[in-house]
Amino acid sequence: MRDLVEIGMGREARRAYDLDQIEIVPSRRTRSSKAVSTAWQLDAYRFDIPLMTHPTDAVVSPSSAVRISELGGLGVLNAEGIWARHADAEGAMAKVIEAATGDEPDSALAVLQELQQAPIQNDLIVEALRPLRDGSHTVAARVSPQRARELTPALLAAGVEVLIVQGTIISAEHVSNDEPLNLKDFINDLDVPVVAGGVGDYRTALHLMRTGAAGVIVGYGQSTATTTDDVLGVGVPMATAIVDAAAARRDYLDETGGRYVHVIADGGIGTSGDIARAMACGADAVMLGEQLAEATEAPAGGLYWTSSAAHPSLPRSEITGLARSGRSLEQVLFGPTDSPYGTTNLFGALRRAMAKTGYSDLKEFQRVGLNLRT
Amino acid sequence: MRDLVEIGMGREARRAYDLDQIEIVPSRRTRSSKAVSTAWQLDAYRFDIPLMTHPTDAVVSPSSAVRISELGGLGVLNAEGIWARHADAEGAMAKVIEAATGDEPDSALAVLQELQQAPIQNDLIVEALRPLRDGSHTVAARVSPQRARELTPALLAAGVEVLIVQGTIISAEHVSNDEPLNLKDFINDLDVPVVAGGVGDYRTALHLMRTGAAGVIVGYGQSTATTTDDVLGVGVPMATAIVDAAAARRDYLDETGGRYVHVIADGGIGTSGDIARAMACGADAVMLGEQLAEATEAPAGGLYWTSSAAHPSLPRSEITGLARSGRSLEQVLFGPTDSPYGTTNLFGALRRAMAKTGYSDLKEFQRVGLNLRT
Amino acid sequence: MRDLVEIGMGREARRAYDLDQIEIVPSRRTRSSKAVSTAWQLDAYRFDIPLMTHPTDAVVSPSSAVRISELGGLGVLNAEGIWARHADAEGAMAKVIEAATGDEPDSALAVLQELQQAPIQNDLIVEALRPLRDGSHTVAARVSPQRARELTPALLAAGVEVLIVQGTIISAEHVSNDEPLNLKDFINDLDVPVVAGGVGDYRTALHLMRTGAAGVIVGYGQSTATTTDDVLGVGVPMATAIVDAAAARRDYLDETGGRYVHVIADGGIGTSGDIARAMACGADAVMLGEQLAEATEAPAGGLYWTSSAAHPSLPRSEITGLARSGRSLEQVLFGPTDSPYGTTNLFGALRRAMAKTGYSDLKEFQRVGLNLRT
Amino acid sequence: MRDLVEIGMGREARRAYDLDQIEIVPSRRTRSSKAVSTAWQLDAYRFDIPLMTHPTDAVVSPSSAVRISELGGLGVLNAEGIWARHADAEGAMAKVIEAATGDEPDSALAVLQELQQAPIQNDLIVEALRPLRDGSHTVAARVSPQRARELTPALLAAGVEVLIVQGTIISAEHVSNDEPLNLKDFINDLDVPVVAGGVGDYRTALHLMRTGAAGVIVGYGQSTATTTDDVLGVGVPMATAIVDAAAARRDYLDETGGRYVHVIADGGIGTSGDIARAMACGADAVMLGEQLAEATEAPAGGLYWTSSAAHPSLPRSEITGLARSGRSLEQVLFGPTDSPYGTTNLFGALRRAMAKTGYSDLKEFQRVGLNLRT
Repeated sequence: MRDLVEIGMGREARRAYDLDQIEIVPSRRTRSSKAVSTAWQLDAYRFDIPLMTHPTDAVVSPSSAVRISELGGLGVLNAEGIWARHADAEGAMAKVIEAATGDEPDSALAVLQELQQAPIQNDLIVEALRPLRDGSHTVAARVSPQRARELTPALLAAGVEVLIVQGTIISAEHVSNDEPLNLKDFINDLDVPVVAGGVGDYRTALHLMRTGAAGVIVGYGQSTATTTDDVLGVGVPMATAIVDAAAARRDYLDETGGRYVHVIADGGIGTSGDIARAMACGADAVMLGEQLAEATEAPAGGLYWTSSAAHPSLPRSEITGLARSGRSLEQVLFGPTDSPYGTTNLFGALRRAMAKTGYSDLKEFQRVGLNLRT
Repeated sequence: MRDLVEIGMGREARRAYDLDQIEIVPSRRTRSSKAVSTAWQLDAYRFDIPLMTHPTDAVVSPSSAVRISELGGLGVLNAEGIWARHADAEGAMAKVIEAATGDEPDSALAVLQELQQAPIQNDLIVEALRPLRDGSHTVAARVSPQRARELTPALLAAGVEVLIVQGTIISAEHVSNDEPLNLKDFINDLDVPVVAGGVGDYRTALHLMRTGAAGVIVGYGQSTATTTDDVLGVGVPMATAIVDAAAARRDYLDETGGRYVHVIADGGIGTSGDIARAMACGADAVMLGEQLAEATEAPAGGLYWTSSAAHPSLPRSEITGLARSGRSLEQVLFGPTDSPYGTTNLFGALRRAMAKTGYSDLKEFQRVGLNLRT
Repeated sequence: MRDLVEIGMGREARRAYDLDQIEIVPSRRTRSSKAVSTAWQLDAYRFDIPLMTHPTDAVVSPSSAVRISELGGLGVLNAEGIWARHADAEGAMAKVIEAATGDEPDSALAVLQELQQAPIQNDLIVEALRPLRDGSHTVAARVSPQRARELTPALLAAGVEVLIVQGTIISAEHVSNDEPLNLKDFINDLDVPVVAGGVGDYRTALHLMRTGAAGVIVGYGQSTATTTDDVLGVGVPMATAIVDAAAARRDYLDETGGRYVHVIADGGIGTSGDIARAMACGADAVMLGEQLAEATEAPAGGLYWTSSAAHPSLPRSEITGLARSGRSLEQVLFGPTDSPYGTTNLFGALRRAMAKTGYSDLKEFQRVGLNLRT
Repeated sequence: MRDLVEIGMGREARRAYDLDQIEIVPSRRTRSSKAVSTAWQLDAYRFDIPLMTHPTDAVVSPSSAVRISELGGLGVLNAEGIWARHADAEGAMAKVIEAATGDEPDSALAVLQELQQAPIQNDLIVEALRPLRDGSHTVAARVSPQRARELTPALLAAGVEVLIVQGTIISAEHVSNDEPLNLKDFINDLDVPVVAGGVGDYRTALHLMRTGAAGVIVGYGQSTATTTDDVLGVGVPMATAIVDAAAARRDYLDETGGRYVHVIADGGIGTSGDIARAMACGADAVMLGEQLAEATEAPAGGLYWTSSAAHPSLPRSEITGLARSGRSLEQVLFGPTDSPYGTTNLFGALRRAMAKTGYSDLKEFQRVGLNLRT
C-alpha cells in the first residue's frame, strides 16, 4: 500500500495506474506460440480461453452466449435485462437500434430506460437460458445484489450453474434500512459457485473472497462508453486494482490454507494488448463486452452500452456505435485477420504475447516483467 | 507542505493537483443512497444541498436565485453586476446574448465591458433582492473587496443575510495607498456572516479565517471559460488548494477551541464527479456557475462567463456558449435524466457517490479514500 | 543539480520543466497594481518594462524598434537580417509575405533562404539604425558569434550602445579550425555592454558571465514556430533553465563580490502568464518575438519566424501565420483589451500578477511561491 | 535497475522512457560542425554514417540498397520479402500501391499478406543481391530466426557479408518442439558477422552478445505504422532500452576483456532529433525505415509498413501513406532543405547536434547530458 502522495497538507492519495500505462517486457527466452496454453478453470468448469462476457444486452443474447461457449469462453446472460423483461426481445432491441441510428441518437438512452421499466418475468429467464442448458453449455447468468435473493430461485430452476452477482460497486456488507443482501449467508445457501463484484480495492476484494465467492470481479466494465468517472467521481485504475485483488487472493489463499479465488478483470480493456496486460497484472480471466460488440452474432447490431446505461435516474454509460466489420465472434476471438489494431484475434494475440515472453501457461504469465510508461 | 520538487538549482516548487487527477476509491461497505444526507449549515442557515452559486450574472438573476433557494441551495446575486447597474437588466442581458450569438461573437465581451461601465444604483440592488426577501429565502449578495465598505450599508438595508466578499484573489491585508479594506475590522462591524475569498493556499485561508469570516472560498471560479492562468500565470490546482484550506480549518478550529469556518470550493468543478471529489478533499460546500448555465431559469440563455469577464482592461474569462438542453434547474440538480455525462442530477450523483463508498453525511465523506491518476 | 532519474542502467537524466508546468501561488498580502514597478535597468540603460525583442525580421524593423523604445522596452535589430542585406527591405519582406499567404505557403521558407543569401552591407546597417540613433533611443543590434568580430566595428560606428551576440546555442569557448570567437577577449575590447546567448544550463551561463557579459540570454527563442527540438534533439525546458541561470548569477555575484549579470529569458513564452512565470523563475527580463508579431507595427504582416528559419541547409523554424487583430504595439503591451487570452496587455498583466501576489518590484517577485502541475 | 514503482500491492514495474521524453542538453563548449565525424565501423566494414535500413520492402529494393551504400550507410534487403518471392517484384509492389491508394485502402494489408504466401526462391535472392555484390557494396540481408538455418546457405552463396537475424522479439534460447535456432551454434558456424535482434532489455541483450553477434538490435522498428503495443501489450520504450543495451555492451566488454558489440536502435525514431537522442542514449547506429519511405528511390511510392504487416494471422503494422515530397535519398540524408521539421538532412542534423554540444565523434557523444521532460 505504498506510493502515497501528499496531495495537500495532511491528506494522502495513492498513485494508481491504468492498463494502458504499463507494458509487458520480453526479458527471457522466447517460445513457440503452439506450446502455449490459455486454458482456465473456474470451480468444476474448464474453459479454453479466460473469457467471461460482461453481462450487457448489447453483446449477450441466448444464441451469442451459446456461441461464446462453443468457442471456449463463458457467456453470461443478464437476468435483469431485455431478455428477462420482453418476450419479443429482438423487437425490443430493434427499437434501441432504430433510435440510436436515427436522427436523434441521443434519444436511444431513453428508449433503453423505458424498456428496462418492464417487469422481469421468470418464464422469460427460463426460456432465455434454455439454449445453453439444452446444448450442454455452462449456464451462467447475472443478477444485481439488490435482486439476487428474489431472482436466484428462478435462475437455479432454469439451470444456472455459475451465478454472477454484479453491481457497479458492491461490498460484502451493504447497509440499508430495507433488507440487505448478506453475501456470505447468500452464498452459503447455494450449491452453485458465485462470482461477485465489481470491486476496486484490496480490502473489498478480500471481504468478498471471505463470503465464499468462487471469483471476484475487479472493475465495473469501464469502456469507452462508460462515464461513471464523470458522474460519481469514482474510479478504478485497473492495473493497480487487479494487482491489489491478486494480493488479496494470495493473502486469502494463505489464510484459508489453500482456497484459490479467481480474479476476473472487467474494465479498461480495449485491445488484445490490454487483455495480455490484465493477465500480466494477475487476472485469472477477463470480462469482455465492447470488444465483442462488433461481431455479427452480437444482438445490438454493433452498438454497445454497459448495464448502467439503463439506470432510470442516473445513467452512467453512453450508447456508442461501432462500425460493423462483418467479422464473426470466432474471428474476433481467434482470427485470422488483416486488421492490425488489436481488436481481432484477441486470444491468438494473448497466446503470442505469452510466447514472445517465454511463458507457457496463464498462471506463470502473471509474473512477467512490467514497464511503466509515464 | 511536503512533495517539493527542485525545478532548478536552489528553487523549489510544490506539486499540486487538480480535481480531475484524483479518484474516489470505494473501499468499505456500501449503503443505500436513501440513507444519505447532503445537508449543510452555514451559521444559522441550513441547506439541503451544499450549493452556493458563483456570483455571475450569467447564472444568477433575482428569479433564478429564488429558484436555487427553493431547491435547497443558496443563490448569490452579484451586487456589482448588471442587476445593480441597469433598471432593464433583462434588456441589457439581451444585448450580450445578441452579440454572442451574432456574426461576431468575440464582440460580446466588449458589450459586457460597456454594460459594466454604468454606475451601481442602490435602489436597483434593493429591487433585485426583493424577491428573495419577500419569499423568505436566505438573502445573499456578493461585493468585491474594493467596494465592500461602500456598498454594504445598502446591502444590509436591502435585507442581505449572508455577505460574500469575493475577488479573483483576496487577502486579509491588502496594501494600497488608497484606503484599503481591513477585513477583520470590516467583519467585526457586521452582524451578518461573511464568506470571503478566493484564496489558493493554506496561509491566506488561515488569515481569512482569523478575520472572523464564516466561510472561506477556495479558487476563483475556474471554468472552461476562465483564462486567468494564461493572463496572470497564477493558478490554483483545486484538489491541493481545498485540502490545504481544510488543514487551515482544522488548525484554526484548534487555535480557537472550536470555531468551524466553512470551506467553499469555487473552481475546477466540471461534472457531478468533480463535486464529489471536491467534497472528498475537504470542502463543506461548492460554488457552481457553469454547470447551471444551461438551465432554463439561467438568465443568459445558455451562455456563461465569470465576473472577471467584464474587467475593463484585462478580462480573464471568455463568453462560452452552451447548447441549451431544455432542462430546468431542478432537473440539473436532482434529475432524473437520460444524459450520462455528469452534467445533470448533480446532487443525486453526489448522494450516490457517498452511498457507494459507505458514507451517510458530508462531514464523514471528507475522509473517503483517494487515488491519484498520473 | 538534484532530481536525477535513472532512465536506464547507469545513465541519468535530469527532470526539467517548462514554464507552462508551473503556476504562481498567491500566498501573502495583496497589493494595488498601481503600487507596482516593472522597471528594469541594464548597465546604464533604464527601461520601464523588462522587454527586449527577439532579433527576428518578422518583428523588428527600424521603425518598430523605435516604437518599442518609446513604449519602454529595448528593440534589437538583427544586423544579419533583411535590413542589413537589402536596400529595399520592405520589398524583400513583401516577397516573403506574398509567398506565405499565396497558394504554396511552404515555399516561403525558400524565399527567406534566398533573401538571406544577399551580402550584408555596412551602409545598410548604418541606415537601419539611424532612426533609433536620431531619436535618442537606446541603439541595440544582434550579431551571430560567427560574424561578431567582422561586423562589430560597423555596428559601433552606427551608434550601437548595447550589443547582442546571439546564436541558437553559444558557448564561451567555441572550438574550430577557423579563427574562433573568444568571447572574453572580444568583450574586453569593447566599450559597450554585451548581452550574449542563448544558453540552456548553469555551467554555460556561468562561463558566459565570466566573459564579462552584461546579460546572458537563456533559451533560443522557442516559439510555436520553432522546430529545433525535432531537428537536433536539443531542448531547453525554460523554467529549469532560467532557475539554473539565476543560480549562476548568484554564484557569479558571490565570486566577483558584486557583479550582477542579467538573465534574459528567450523562449517558451506564449502568454502574459508565461512572462510572469519567467520572472518568477528568476529572469530579469524577457525577449519577446511571436507575441509582438500581430501588432500593426510589426513588419511581416502578422507572420512570425525566428532567425534560424533562414538557415541555408537546416532551418529550424516554420513561418507561422497569425490572424492580425488590428492591435497596436501599445495595446499589445499595455492594453486595454477585450480579449481574455493573455496575448494583449502583456505588461499590464505582469503588473497585476505582481500585485495579486503582493510584490512591488521585479527583483522581489523572483521569490514568489510556485506550484508544479503534473 | 532502479526507479521501480509499486503499481499495486506487491507488484513492481519499472519506469521506462521513450526518446521523445528526453532532451539533449548543450552544456559545454561548442564546435564547428565541420570538425565532427559521424563515421561508424561494424566488423571490417566502415560507414560514413551510422545508418542501417530497417529490412522492409517498403524502403529497401536492390537499387535503393545500392544507393544507401553509395551514400555511406548499409542497406539491408529482406530475404523473406517480395524480392525473394516474386520474379516481378515491382509488379507485386505495384499491386500493394494500387490497393493502398485506391477506394479501399484497408484492403492493401490483405494484398500484402497474399503476396507473402508465395514461396521464397533462392535464385531470386541471388538476383536481388547482385547489384550490391557487383557494385562492391557491402552486401547485407535479413532472415527471420525461424528460417535462418534454411536460408543462410543461399545468402552466403549470394555474397552476403553481414547477416541480419531479426524478428519482432528474439532471444538466445527459443523453446520449441520443432527444431529451434540455437543462435550461438549458428553464429559460430558462420564466417560473416551477424547482427541480431530485436531485444528490449538488458538480459536478452547480454545473452545475444554472448552468442557471438557483432551487433544487437534494440527495438522492433516501432514507427507510426506499428501497432504491436495494441496487439500484444508488449512495448519497448526506446530511451531506456538503448541505455540498458549499452550497459550490457559495457558489461560484456568487461567480461570478455574487450569484445565490443554494437548496439543498433530500431524503433521510436521519427525525426533527426530522435536519431541524435538515440545516439546520446548509447546507440552505435540506427536502423531507419519510415524516415526513408518518402525518398524518390524508395520502392513503395511513399507508403510505409514494417515486416510484421504481412503476418498471415496477426499483423502488427498499418500501411501508412506519406505524401511524397520529391526528395532524393541524398537530400533526405544530407540536405540541403527548406523544410524545418527534422525529416530531411537527417545526418546533417546529427552532425550539428554533436557540434552544438561540443562532441567530435559518436562514441564521445554517447556521454552528452540529458534532460527528462515530464
